[in-house]
Amino acid sequence: MATVWHEVLHVCKQSGARYGILHTPHGDFETPIFMPVGTKANVKTLIPEEIKEVSDGLILANTYHLWLQPGDEVVKEFGGVRGFMNWDGALLTDSGGFQVFSLSKIRKITEEGVEFRHHKSGEKLFITPEKSISIQNNLGADIIMSFDECPPFNSSREYMIDSVDRTIRWAKRGKEAHKNPETQSLFGIVQGGGYKDIRKHSIDELEKIGFEGYSIGGLSVGESKEEMYEMLEYLKDIMPYNKPRYLMGVGSPDDLIIGSINGVDMFDCVLPTRNARHGTAFTSEGKIQVKNQNLKLSKDPLDKECKCFVCQRYTRGYLNHLVKAEEILGMRLISYHNLYFLRNLMHQIREAIKEDRLLDFKEEFFKKFGYK
Amino acid sequence: MATVWHEVLHVCKQSGARYGILHTPHGDFETPIFMPVGTKANVKTLIPEEIKEVSDGLILANTYHLWLQPGDEVVKEFGGVRGFMNWDGALLTDSGGFQVFSLSKIRKITEEGVEFRHHKSGEKLFITPEKSISIQNNLGADIIMSFDECPPFNSSREYMIDSVDRTIRWAKRGKEAHKNPETQSLFGIVQGGGYKDIRKHSIDELEKIGFEGYSIGGLSVGESKEEMYEMLEYLKDIMPYNKPRYLMGVGSPDDLIIGSINGVDMFDCVLPTRNARHGTAFTSEGKIQVKNQNLKLSKDPLDKECKCFVCQRYTRGYLNHLVKAEEILGMRLISYHNLYFLRNLMHQIREAIKEDRLLDFKEEFFKKFGYK
Repeated sequence: MATVWHEVLHVCKQSGARYGILHTPHGDFETPIFMPVGTKANVKTLIPEEIKEVSDGLILANTYHLWLQPGDEVVKEFGGVRGFMNWDGALLTDSGGFQVFSLSKIRKITEEGVEFRHHKSGEKLFITPEKSISIQNNLGADIIMSFDECPPFNSSREYMIDSVDRTIRWAKRGKEAHKNPETQSLFGIVQGGGYKDIRKHSIDELEKIGFEGYSIGGLSVGESKEEMYEMLEYLKDIMPYNKPRYLMGVGSPDDLIIGSINGVDMFDCVLPTRNARHGTAFTSEGKIQVKNQNLKLSKDPLDKECKCFVCQRYTRGYLNHLVKAEEILGMRLISYHNLYFLRNLMHQIREAIKEDRLLDFKEEFFKKFGYK
Repeated sequence: MATVWHEVLHVCKQSGARYGILHTPHGDFETPIFMPVGTKANVKTLIPEEIKEVSDGLILANTYHLWLQPGDEVVKEFGGVRGFMNWDGALLTDSGGFQVFSLSKIRKITEEGVEFRHHKSGEKLFITPEKSISIQNNLGADIIMSFDECPPFNSSREYMIDSVDRTIRWAKRGKEAHKNPETQSLFGIVQGGGYKDIRKHSIDELEKIGFEGYSIGGLSVGESKEEMYEMLEYLKDIMPYNKPRYLMGVGSPDDLIIGSINGVDMFDCVLPTRNARHGTAFTSEGKIQVKNQNLKLSKDPLDKECKCFVCQRYTRGYLNHLVKAEEILGMRLISYHNLYFLRNLMHQIREAIKEDRLLDFKEEFFKKFGYK
């Protein structure tokens, strides 16, 4: 038995969305699930008890950042990311590939790996599929990712084929380099941008190598929502059924719903915490800018329907003041609320799947939230 | 009966320090007490439950800041600072005087009040003793302060006499303007810089007006420790015995101990939270810079003797990482620890007073902490 596996317990008769259980060494989780991002071994502003309250108990940390600081060897000394940050829930790490391609302007891709410059210091660095896995072995997450290139969505067909084939070879090398298959499950990452046949090729080849889950990379990277949704619809029928499907870097409410409709089991995104630090809060009636002048005297909670402690206790007026005063507490309280909002959204999505009404739920939610 | 009053229950036979109880409408507090500063209606990074854990339940908010943003009328709408920030403990506000003099470079003092420029926008503003009290009436703290000028410690004798006499007249005007004497206790502020006779004059005149407590202003404003301690020693015998004595803006461990030895009952300071935001932590063996490279691999807590949740759970190595990564969580955890450290220090001071051994405690603490 794999260390991480996924059971589909119900398929929504209305939408085809999957409700299931993701089993991991540190907990079993209902899916579809949203994973808060703890980039540098902390979900920004929050302590583990709070992360438990606003998540389902599975979070993500970033390989790239922790490799560069404090270093994966250091993190390993503290018992991996979980020990380091005192998190007893489950953990996933990405491959670092996305950051190498998005944060670093100067890079050179070869068959061996990627040479790039540190996004702050400018230091020259080199990462290979083996190195990515080695770092992730040290970080010790339950679920780890194959090192991939994340090419722009609209790369040329020729470049995309080359890139995807290389990423497949990298995935194979990564699997061979993986030292802890008994404790850490390795996922392959499907790439291919907007080319359906290349996506199909990517899936087929990754399946031949064999992974414990399949991630969808290269979406939500600048393409239009229509393009993303079309690809998700295509992937829905060709992704391996019995393995967990993880849509990387996706986390806006509409995308979580549409992703679920298209059979995605796992999501992650910095959006709820990043939005919070910029004073944007999710509410059941849409996003609000907390520092808007018209909230100054409001005694309402951020979201009247929300049961989180921030909404039970704090007014929009007080939060408006904290954001305007640039108080850290404001970022903290809105981060908590935004994550709680997404946790609750995922709960609603799962209930709707079980009740075979996810398309109805989508309509209701979109209307209320103000999506077109 | 005054709304706030102080009982001296024991005087340390070794040091003359006072152990007592400060009674307020929102709790009775053992003294000497340290009050965390919640400048803008929040103790930076922390929520009220946490403030309860790291304080004795009495905190301070700043009149100047809340007057300017969101405005005292706004705060009043939300039930005062306590309602606004959801704090059910006791509260003290300062007069705003100190900030007018320390934050604003351009100002003009007249008998009527002080004209000054907003420290950020440059907007021209005017504050009077009546205005300060009116703002504080709106903010609704249990303990409020007379509006005072805080002249530099080494002002000329002539200027100091003029200033103190004006501050006394301002205190009288403030008392007359005070609208809520049944719910808010008004303290007078003793000024006089380094001049003992002027300090004495200030006390005598304030006593004639009559206040429910007496604050010591104009210390810890740039003078030497020796000058401050000499003045505290002098004030010890001439401050009204039956009223609470509050040394404003003081909060380093040595000053808290020496202040207590000199009969001070109440203290406040931004030091523990400001230090935390700059990565400096108090420990029983002295201050440490949390980002020091030699802590990178340390599995020790910040302070082995500390019982706070940060020290129970987090390593110096992890905190070192958070501070280097400029993570808000690092500021939050160290803020919590630093305040807890001072709360515990005050507890130790009170125990030592009750056991008539505060001078011994001072020796022990200074030696271990590394003070000369």
